[in-house]
Amino acid sequence: MSVRAGVVVTGTEVLAGRVRDRNGPWLADRLAELGVELAHVLITGDRPADLRAALEFMRAEGADIVITSGGLGPTADDLTAQIVAEFAGRPLELDEALEERIAGIVARFARRWNLDPKALEAANRKQAMVPQGAVALDPVGTAPGLVVPADGQVVVVLPGPPRELQESWQQAVLTAPFEAAIENAPHYRQTMLRLFGIPESEIAETLRVAEREIGLDALEITTCLRRAELEIVIRSDDRSDHTADDLAALIAERHGQALFSTDGSSIDEQVAALLTGRRLGVGESCTGGLLAGRLTDRPGSSAYFAGGVVAYSNQAKIEMLGVPPDLIKQHGAVSEEVARAMAAGAIDRFGADVGIGLTGIAGPDGGTPDKPVGRVCFSVITKGEEDREIVRALDLPGSRAEVRDRSTTVAFHLLRRLLRGEASPV
Amino acid sequence: MSVRAGVVVTGTEVLAGRVRDRNGPWLADRLAELGVELAHVLITGDRPADLRAALEFMRAEGADIVITSGGLGPTADDLTAQIVAEFAGRPLELDEALEERIAGIVARFARRWNLDPKALEAANRKQAMVPQGAVALDPVGTAPGLVVPADGQVVVVLPGPPRELQESWQQAVLTAPFEAAIENAPHYRQTMLRLFGIPESEIAETLRVAEREIGLDALEITTCLRRAELEIVIRSDDRSDHTADDLAALIAERHGQALFSTDGSSIDEQVAALLTGRRLGVGESCTGGLLAGRLTDRPGSSAYFAGGVVAYSNQAKIEMLGVPPDLIKQHGAVSEEVARAMAAGAIDRFGADVGIGLTGIAGPDGGTPDKPVGRVCFSVITKGEEDREIVRALDLPGSRAEVRDRSTTVAFHLLRRLLRGEASPV
Repeated sequence: MSVRAGVVVTGTEVLAGRVRDRNGPWLADRLAELGVELAHVLITGDRPADLRAALEFMRAEGADIVITSGGLGPTADDLTAQIVAEFAGRPLELDEALEERIAGIVARFARRWNLDPKALEAANRKQAMVPQGAVALDPVGTAPGLVVPADGQVVVVLPGPPRELQESWQQAVLTAPFEAAIENAPHYRQTMLRLFGIPESEIAETLRVAEREIGLDALEITTCLRRAELEIVIRSDDRSDHTADDLAALIAERHGQALFSTDGSSIDEQVAALLTGRRLGVGESCTGGLLAGRLTDRPGSSAYFAGGVVAYSNQAKIEMLGVPPDLIKQHGAVSEEVARAMAAGAIDRFGADVGIGLTGIAGPDGGTPDKPVGRVCFSVITKGEEDREIVRALDLPGSRAEVRDRSTTVAFHLLRRLLRGEASPV
Repeated sequence: MSVRAGVVVTGTEVLAGRVRDRNGPWLADRLAELGVELAHVLITGDRPADLRAALEFMRAEGADIVITSGGLGPTADDLTAQIVAEFAGRPLELDEALEERIAGIVARFARRWNLDPKALEAANRKQAMVPQGAVALDPVGTAPGLVVPADGQVVVVLPGPPRELQESWQQAVLTAPFEAAIENAPHYRQTMLRLFGIPESEIAETLRVAEREIGLDALEITTCLRRAELEIVIRSDDRSDHTADDLAALIAERHGQALFSTDGSSIDEQVAALLTGRRLGVGESCTGGLLAGRLTDRPGSSAYFAGGVVAYSNQAKIEMLGVPPDLIKQHGAVSEEVARAMAAGAIDRFGADVGIGLTGIAGPDGGTPDKPVGRVCFSVITKGEEDREIVRALDLPGSRAEVRDRSTTVAFHLLRRLLRGEASPV
């Protein structure tokens, strides 16, 4: 038995492309973990008729679970609760305890912003209306999520702001109607393999070999290029888990060098772990701060991030990172030699024990026949072990934004190899 | 008469959230420009039944134009052309001239990759199958887009890779069936207003006033918070353009201070223009490089971006930006005083004439009752005009990522005000 779900994202600003939907992808991951098959994600405007049509479509498509995001606010055009109530044939009723809880939450804002008490009362009451027999979740923002049984389906009504949606979801999965809906979901296992430094065509060849040697019919395999890495997701069930293991083993055998993650960990997590107890300094040019920005994404990164210099100009490279002017004159600012001097300078200036230097041409202008747009030079060094440095000059494809982003990924992977004591080619 | 459209995005990797859909938002913009109303964006998997259901849904929803993205490749699971042909009741026919064109394109790759000629031939033939009476577009990659009349509707079948989709779209809008479909589209005008430093509730109040004083029934208004800015989009037609102008004027009158863009320009574009002929230095702490990264997003930013220091530690602030140790001891690293010293240090060290200093607590840890998580101090200074500096200490809401991102927006706005000679409060 498979359990199917549909996601309905409401909001004119999402539909118009002005805001990127982050809820659909997040919910897709959660559903996959539960063994629920996501059939459709439907983005629709704020109009009642469109939302109603979306719910009907999901019903017609046999979705056991329908999840809506957005349209739960206090204003008149936030209509999701009402339309879901009609869809489920469960009239809205005032939940007085909920009304009080919302009033308590809102009171704090109200004092600060000096809002009209009459309007507030109406807004609170609107958000405390719950379809008969539905479960109201604890409000995370002010609008409470809902779990609404609807004629054999369950509609999970969630607020639109991602943090609120995520916290409400954790509550929704624990409710009785939701648990009943996923009771028959099969056990699925997802194996995620991440590789770096390998063309997609080589993986395609390995999959053909695997098809011949072990047979892949019982698996669902997707491969996907993301931020210069290749992700392979293998979905298996109780009967095919061993085939998934065989495939993973074959990939490890054929691409051991490129395979860096088999447990779902990201390169960012791995580098953060490897940096424990060390101090990292960064000297970067064409990435313009994005490398340091990515290295400091994670809470607690101040423990290992000593500092960075964004040295766009030659003068900044010379004065802030101690790159010898002659080196630039001789090899050019975009060269392995200058990248190495930037890494050494970052170690020196920030009192770090690991350094990264990165210099390149992100484009769209500034390329030459000799050094085209996309040429980026990298150096990673450990203080006192300069002989084990890794230095690379690569030609990265894509737009300015892609070259900048991919450069940060390459730097992370070189850093990982250095810190693991691998000095192998990219 | 309004013309409605629906977009169907196919692809398991998009549905699973592993790849972000860039085509839906891009097409939304193009449709808005043509006066076509986008009713739904439906993301669906690669299965034939799901795609068929998606097309039927769009028909039932009265979409005059349905646009599909993806599923046009050479492999067996690329089924979009076939399913659209069935949907339109137009059997697939081989277009021999198209087959030859595709073969010519593919030949180049084939030689380089040493592909099997038999398999190639089959792949080319598959991609040259065109629904009877449909228009085949010039292939941008190898897969040609299609414009397929379908019983009063038009289905525009586009390849999935964004660059290919965009180029194919430019061709599709010029075909006779497409032109016929949009013939009755009304002229729409979109007015985009961007504001900064104003709570959404104040705009809501202004909209209530406008409703009373000028009436807003003929307009479609959406407001949306994005990266700490508030965007208001007003859609009007020939008869309501003047009402849109009246509303824009009212907003300008009531929120002139906060309103920074009426022509669609972003704060990034405005700051880039204001920086022409100047050199900017950045000293940043909690944003960890993201401020410099955003300032160097744009091609040509090396003309005005002198450099940046990511000074996470006190030592880095002292040594790399010349912040006096006593200042940190007296006021703390997160203080207006230290932000000012960082801005001055960035000017000094990079030989710049404009400086930004930014220091704060992005969280989730590190907050104190006195200086909570989200406290960020900013300073922007022009060399030689230090008396006109702008200094702020703000408490920004949200997660670590949101605090970091919003901080870059605030810094951009303070920079804009400084460079325009405004020294007004945020």
